[in-house]
Amino acid sequence: MFELLATDGAARRGRLTTVHGVVETPVFMPCGTYGTVKAMTPKTLEEVGTQILLGNTFHLLLRPGDAVIRDLGGLHGFMHWSHPILTDSGGFQVWSLGDLREISEDGVRFRSPVDGDRVELTPERSMQVQQNLGADILMVLDECTSFPATYEAAEASMQLSLRWAGRCKEAHNGSGMLFGIVQGGMYDELRKLSLAGLEALDFDGYAIGGLSVGESKSAMDTVLRGLLPNMPVERPRYLMGVGTPQDLVRGIELGVDMFDCVLPTRNARNGYLFTSTGTLKIRNAQHRNSDEPVDAQCDCYTCANFSRGYLHHLDHCGEMLGPILMTQHNLHYYHALVARLRGSIETGTFRTLIETLQYDWTSQNEPV
Amino acid sequence: MFELLATDGAARRGRLTTVHGVVETPVFMPCGTYGTVKAMTPKTLEEVGTQILLGNTFHLLLRPGDAVIRDLGGLHGFMHWSHPILTDSGGFQVWSLGDLREISEDGVRFRSPVDGDRVELTPERSMQVQQNLGADILMVLDECTSFPATYEAAEASMQLSLRWAGRCKEAHNGSGMLFGIVQGGMYDELRKLSLAGLEALDFDGYAIGGLSVGESKSAMDTVLRGLLPNMPVERPRYLMGVGTPQDLVRGIELGVDMFDCVLPTRNARNGYLFTSTGTLKIRNAQHRNSDEPVDAQCDCYTCANFSRGYLHHLDHCGEMLGPILMTQHNLHYYHALVARLRGSIETGTFRTLIETLQYDWTSQNEPV
Repeated sequence: MFELLATDGAARRGRLTTVHGVVETPVFMPCGTYGTVKAMTPKTLEEVGTQILLGNTFHLLLRPGDAVIRDLGGLHGFMHWSHPILTDSGGFQVWSLGDLREISEDGVRFRSPVDGDRVELTPERSMQVQQNLGADILMVLDECTSFPATYEAAEASMQLSLRWAGRCKEAHNGSGMLFGIVQGGMYDELRKLSLAGLEALDFDGYAIGGLSVGESKSAMDTVLRGLLPNMPVERPRYLMGVGTPQDLVRGIELGVDMFDCVLPTRNARNGYLFTSTGTLKIRNAQHRNSDEPVDAQCDCYTCANFSRGYLHHLDHCGEMLGPILMTQHNLHYYHALVARLRGSIETGTFRTLIETLQYDWTSQNEPV
Repeated sequence: MFELLATDGAARRGRLTTVHGVVETPVFMPCGTYGTVKAMTPKTLEEVGTQILLGNTFHLLLRPGDAVIRDLGGLHGFMHWSHPILTDSGGFQVWSLGDLREISEDGVRFRSPVDGDRVELTPERSMQVQQNLGADILMVLDECTSFPATYEAAEASMQLSLRWAGRCKEAHNGSGMLFGIVQGGMYDELRKLSLAGLEALDFDGYAIGGLSVGESKSAMDTVLRGLLPNMPVERPRYLMGVGTPQDLVRGIELGVDMFDCVLPTRNARNGYLFTSTGTLKIRNAQHRNSDEPVDAQCDCYTCANFSRGYLHHLDHCGEMLGPILMTQHNLHYYHALVARLRGSIETGTFRTLIETLQYDWTSQNEPV
């Protein structure tokens, strides 16, 4: 169930209720690819403010397999995460395999990058896997439209995704919520057709797929501006695989409710830290003797207790504690940013807040 | 200050009071080589029951250097560990360099394995480094006698260590406690001469060095049985670099108060887990579908919340959470074992306890 609690311009403050608890939106969802958010325990995830995780169907299908996870308590029991979980459909990762996969009307076939076995992913199989995982939110199998794509190619791909969405809806056993995914490449008209087709099938939420695939920021912005005002008000809207702190702010401004991205966790492992005064590269020699915290305005475990000099040293020595502490910081940064935005929508001060943030994020470098 | 609270046979229950707090003995000290116990935060170290850490002078001297650590709050501030720290002298690691180091009366010279720089470690420099680190317990610089060694070689080496011990005592500025290190190879007579020489210099504690260097278990046992009854009753006794759970039980039985070893942490990273029913190799296929905890008798975070099947999966995928959770378990196992032994000495039931443990540890495989 989704309740819209407040709006401020197009920005929305909502609440999503799942079997495993409530999610306050807008929300950022960290990626728990192989049934673990890299370098984080479930306890530290709770501490940094994670409400809901994303699990990757593609990865978990290959290792350890959905039957193993089903028998070990579903993904919640397996990874000891008692809060909500959203699983993707596996479509995006299969698409990323490029020449290694073969797409037909029926579904996708590919060779496992792990052991070379032939694997088949159909809309029906994707539903079965996600149900075995025990997801609170399941995603339909879609084909991610390539970029760039001609109108005709984007249309054919979008129509295939629509047909697959119908088969997913049909195959879904009713456990958890099922979200549709809007495709259509960079073509506004196709996006709207995709949305209309999905709405006719009536999903619990609507995601925007096929972005952050190589297009410019302004192209993404154009798609979002064209699409979001037309999306159903009473259903959650999820922008998949996005993005930087700026992307989140912009998405929320335009009316997005949910986001996921590997950026904060992957960047942390590479020593790139998000802070209120810009991005910080811990490897830089300037941090060697620094007794400053990563971000003086941050109250995460890392910033409360460790210096840049110490983190620089851990990075230099390849110590696991580096990624552990830096991942905690970056996720805390993302969650705290989104929490502030949520608060500002409630009080009608969203615009005021993002104007003060402009200063902060202009010095955020590009993702690593 | 060291107080002897109780004895049971030769086993001792004591309390060591340092600037950074009290250590209940017997105690196991995890190794924080580069200013971090690999895969552990200070918080998780406290949770598994760590009272005191070991810091490695050799490693910290090379990276990031003792001056950096001194300026960033000493090792306690640098790594955010508010409890006691013992630092070794660097001697053992330098000795391990083999042909890459050159030993003279003055001290040791070697090329840094990190950047090839020439480094010199003398008794005076070792004291300076350990003082810059801010150790609660400092160790004298010693030469680890090679194994095997002739009587003459072992004697010459032991005498050199004695002279260095005198220079350390002279150079020590009085901060923290300073421990002497008994050498003498496998020769009982030399061990006793070494001990007498150190006692004449009057140290705050006495360590047994030069064991676990390739000799048999029975050779180590012979040295301990010859030496321990002669060691001063009112000072703590530290068996360096030892060992397996069985080694700890045997050492405590013979009157040892302190131990350190990389075994529980290194084995954890390799997927070897200590349990009350024997050693468990998480990589084994038999664990793939197991919903059992690592050790049903253990109440650590890992055993309370995760299955062998999940840990097997993490190991298979090379996920960092594997070492994180398995290190927590192994350290908890070591600390809980030593805590039970402490309790049994207080109640005079040490022998009864270790007889029940015999069953448990006979199936503990050899260290990895």
